[in-house]
Amino acid sequence: MTRRIKNSTPLRDGFRIPGEFEPHIGSYIIWPEKGFEFRNGGKNAQRVCVNVAEAIAEFEECTVICSADGYENCRARLNDKVRVVEMTTNAAWAQDKGVFYVVNDKSEMRGVHFGFNAYGGLNEGLYFPWNYDQQFGEKLFQLDRLDFYDARHFILEGGATQVDGEGTIIISEQCNLNPNRNGSMSRDEVERNCKEYLGLEKVIWVKRGMLFDETDGHIDDICFFVSPGVIALSWVDDESHPQYPVFKEAYDTLSQATDAKGRKFEIHKIHIPDIIYISEEENDTFDIVATAAPREKNQALAVTYINGYFVEGGYLVPQFGDPMDEVVIKKYSELMPQRKVIGLDTREWSLSGGNIHCMTLQQPRP
Amino acid sequence: MTRRIKNSTPLRDGFRIPGEFEPHIGSYIIWPEKGFEFRNGGKNAQRVCVNVAEAIAEFEECTVICSADGYENCRARLNDKVRVVEMTTNAAWAQDKGVFYVVNDKSEMRGVHFGFNAYGGLNEGLYFPWNYDQQFGEKLFQLDRLDFYDARHFILEGGATQVDGEGTIIISEQCNLNPNRNGSMSRDEVERNCKEYLGLEKVIWVKRGMLFDETDGHIDDICFFVSPGVIALSWVDDESHPQYPVFKEAYDTLSQATDAKGRKFEIHKIHIPDIIYISEEENDTFDIVATAAPREKNQALAVTYINGYFVEGGYLVPQFGDPMDEVVIKKYSELMPQRKVIGLDTREWSLSGGNIHCMTLQQPRP
Repeated sequence: MTRRIKNSTPLRDGFRIPGEFEPHIGSYIIWPEKGFEFRNGGKNAQRVCVNVAEAIAEFEECTVICSADGYENCRARLNDKVRVVEMTTNAAWAQDKGVFYVVNDKSEMRGVHFGFNAYGGLNEGLYFPWNYDQQFGEKLFQLDRLDFYDARHFILEGGATQVDGEGTIIISEQCNLNPNRNGSMSRDEVERNCKEYLGLEKVIWVKRGMLFDETDGHIDDICFFVSPGVIALSWVDDESHPQYPVFKEAYDTLSQATDAKGRKFEIHKIHIPDIIYISEEENDTFDIVATAAPREKNQALAVTYINGYFVEGGYLVPQFGDPMDEVVIKKYSELMPQRKVIGLDTREWSLSGGNIHCMTLQQPRP
Repeated sequence: MTRRIKNSTPLRDGFRIPGEFEPHIGSYIIWPEKGFEFRNGGKNAQRVCVNVAEAIAEFEECTVICSADGYENCRARLNDKVRVVEMTTNAAWAQDKGVFYVVNDKSEMRGVHFGFNAYGGLNEGLYFPWNYDQQFGEKLFQLDRLDFYDARHFILEGGATQVDGEGTIIISEQCNLNPNRNGSMSRDEVERNCKEYLGLEKVIWVKRGMLFDETDGHIDDICFFVSPGVIALSWVDDESHPQYPVFKEAYDTLSQATDAKGRKFEIHKIHIPDIIYISEEENDTFDIVATAAPREKNQALAVTYINGYFVEGGYLVPQFGDPMDEVVIKKYSELMPQRKVIGLDTREWSLSGGNIHCMTLQQPRP
């Protein structure tokens, strides 16, 4: 049985969103197969998906979601440890479809179903329609027989949030106050919705996300919680680098902030790789459709090692063929000595605007 | 993890198919929504589906499977006790897509995945294509994280089998030796495949199924096991009734047979209702497609109370608005005093060629 809970909230019922570093039941990924968002009909991105899904499955359960017509090939490409489930979507990026999980201290888990409008709806959103993506949450909760809170009046993508599991969330003004998400909703109302529906006490606002990011400033390219009180932050030392002002601003905000428990943050600067540009040849292998945001050749991409992913006992880090790749793996290994840190070549996903964190969805173990 | 087992069989590994009267984990039903197999785009049959699914959900878990585009409506029509899962199919009739479950005495369960060709393939099969229906088994086993035996070289529909859970299966020559199922496969080879892949010892052959049945003689309109050694059999007293020779033949075969344990059968005759004909008006509301077997107005339908369904603690019986409806409910209540016997008006499904047993798929509790 799956109940839709409309007359209460996680905060009222004693549920909270756990940190991504807390134990997982498993992960969902959506098979990249749409030609407008992945080049060559998704074939290159699928090879990355196989590597990432099989890496996750070494640590915890991994379910890949794909279309009816892609099922046979998707199933054949992945090893037996990975589960494949049919579900129709309009686009990949499982993190962002408004699906969250909250837990309580009685080891219960419930879903939270926010609204989704393809990163801005008809007001500079990335694609149209998003009818199936709106249903993704309900379908997942049905699949897992989870009761869920219906918060579809409020648009919120997972990539637009970072939480510490102890009452704190970091979001960005650029995204979470963008009129293309929740219209004229005030800062207070946005805070109230986050707190009520994710069981939180404190909202920290960072001004904006990375340049070249088409999501209107998702926080998951800027920083993540390594553990409560400890933040990894995208960084570049060169003050003339176009991303420098963004990171500096975030650093200043976070270094002056305290979390829900009153702690100051320990902040670790994680240097980004060199800017990556999508080549003319690469750009030419995307489908041309009127219903998706256009892609430009030689466009700079938002790339950072921050968009990695926690698994039970491990951490998966994007690799770009950059000298910084190794440095970051070493750094993360020191920061998370209890975890196996694994680098995965995910440049291909970056061409489509995201990375491992965007593509995955973590289901906590209550 | 879901492993495809190709180099062994349930018989070799100590697995057996349980009787349908044994405990269930739950049931699957496919939402009727295709206009070529259900009239008015499935709307009438959907009302029956709601009643049946909600009746099942009072006893055990019930999952309704539907298309991506039908999901929202299907979810809205059913109460919260019923789970809804997206999965693409070519046609409804969950019982028949080659999906079986076997259990062992260590409380383990595995799937068995037979082939499926839409009741005869290009040689008088009922529809084309059947590409999604062929994948139904693998998708269900993935969903439920079940290892399964790959027996796709052998076509076998659930409705073409009746088992007693103690080593005996009843099948029909008309269906199971039909060249449109397994070509020129001999009687011995068919027996061997049934025994190996369902963990059985004895095959009992009935000559044929009911007249007016488009499946080439499915046994699930002829008889079912009430319990090991006890059979309910479709019957009519009038020797001039067109179905009489079929039932008499089956009665003669079964009354002379012994099961895998060497027992003679206790046979209970269950009288069928009056013949039902599809009206011109009803027939006119089916979609006209070149890729499905044509339906004729005023055609007689194969209707029987035998095509009912076991649930945990209950039994669901088709009702046709016939005087026999009540008689059968009373009879079943006496035969199965420990079960709640529930009648459901399913005439609408009969118009499409099946009834509750055909539409459902039981998953045993190992």
